[in-house]
Amino acid sequence: MSTPPSPRTAVKRQPDRGHYEPKLVHAVLDEGLVAHVGLATDDGPVVIPMLYARDGDRLLLHGSAASRLMRAGRATAMCVTVTLVDGLVLARSAFHHSMNYRSVVVFGQATAITDPDERLAALGVLVEHLVPGRTPDSRPPSDKELRATLVLALPLDEASVKVRTGPPSDDDEDLDLPHWAGVVPVTTVFGSPEPAPDLRADVPAPAYASGYRRPANPER
Amino acid sequence: MSTPPSPRTAVKRQPDRGHYEPKLVHAVLDEGLVAHVGLATDDGPVVIPMLYARDGDRLLLHGSAASRLMRAGRATAMCVTVTLVDGLVLARSAFHHSMNYRSVVVFGQATAITDPDERLAALGVLVEHLVPGRTPDSRPPSDKELRATLVLALPLDEASVKVRTGPPSDDDEDLDLPHWAGVVPVTTVFGSPEPAPDLRADVPAPAYASGYRRPANPER
Repeated sequence: MSTPPSPRTAVKRQPDRGHYEPKLVHAVLDEGLVAHVGLATDDGPVVIPMLYARDGDRLLLHGSAASRLMRAGRATAMCVTVTLVDGLVLARSAFHHSMNYRSVVVFGQATAITDPDERLAALGVLVEHLVPGRTPDSRPPSDKELRATLVLALPLDEASVKVRTGPPSDDDEDLDLPHWAGVVPVTTVFGSPEPAPDLRADVPAPAYASGYRRPANPER
Repeated sequence: MSTPPSPRTAVKRQPDRGHYEPKLVHAVLDEGLVAHVGLATDDGPVVIPMLYARDGDRLLLHGSAASRLMRAGRATAMCVTVTLVDGLVLARSAFHHSMNYRSVVVFGQATAITDPDERLAALGVLVEHLVPGRTPDSRPPSDKELRATLVLALPLDEASVKVRTGPPSDDDEDLDLPHWAGVVPVTTVFGSPEPAPDLRADVPAPAYASGYRRPANPER
């Protein structure tokens, strides 16, 4: 465990599960696929699932909701959370049932990427996060598409990761109860690629699709 | 598609993907495992992953963060989002890359369940959501555990579900490009139960663990 970079970033409940090293934050972000983006709006808090990617020490956000988030072009305060579920934890007591998980919470101000070249590069990073190896094997965005695309950048300065691993934590006096205790592992599995109905007959599924695996960009 | 129950509940971007029928909302909530709970705080928006369960027409929330969310015991405005990822959508154009997903967004005011009997029942529903069939096969909460437990209830009056399914939506002029297009299916898989190291030798893994499957409570 390292030191939280700001008071609000500190893991409050079960602080022993909290970590702040960028390497650990990055590993969770690189494995996840969906970020849950929280904003304060006139209608109250809103949480929107979005595609994202890590680009060095910042997070890129993109999705159908982007324009709603950033319509004024100003920096926007947000909290972005990415959660990976690793197991269901069955304790002898109902009270100690839990999950094994890894979650990252990022606080900060997101800004829109306005420079066209930077936005083009950011879109490539987003596609690579979703499907590593894909960018060179797809049609690049046109000028019109680039203009229609909003990409947000959020610094990773205020990020924490919270992790639970291992078996259930039953109370000593419960250990001899006749109930099974342990963990049901949870994994995300990527199946055989399903070609589009209108795909050209001479285009086989590429290795990055048929052998798809996470994390996206361990080397970045 | 039905009618949104309130203006803020209406799906704004790609409204053709939005639905409001309780049956569709319930199906996503019953399959999911983690809710992302968004709140407005003095530190700005916060998004916390939490265990949850659907109990009829309300959502129950429970987790290490509960006390932080509800320390004053007042009704708290929140937005709760549950997202299931079903596929990675590879289009011929970078621009049309997407995901197949089902997500539910609920707006409302959460209140703490204060009645001890109701809280006991709610904890049973939460355990059953996590592991259907488990409640009768675990030690019930003690009075002390019950007092230490905070369960929130959020009505499902303002809920929407957004769904994307099917192949990529490439532009007509891109259909003949030499790039593969289609969907990589994504599923959540539950592995063989891993017994706790201190488990009694005479307790086999129960069928609800070795044959674990979602959704949790299709009949509720």
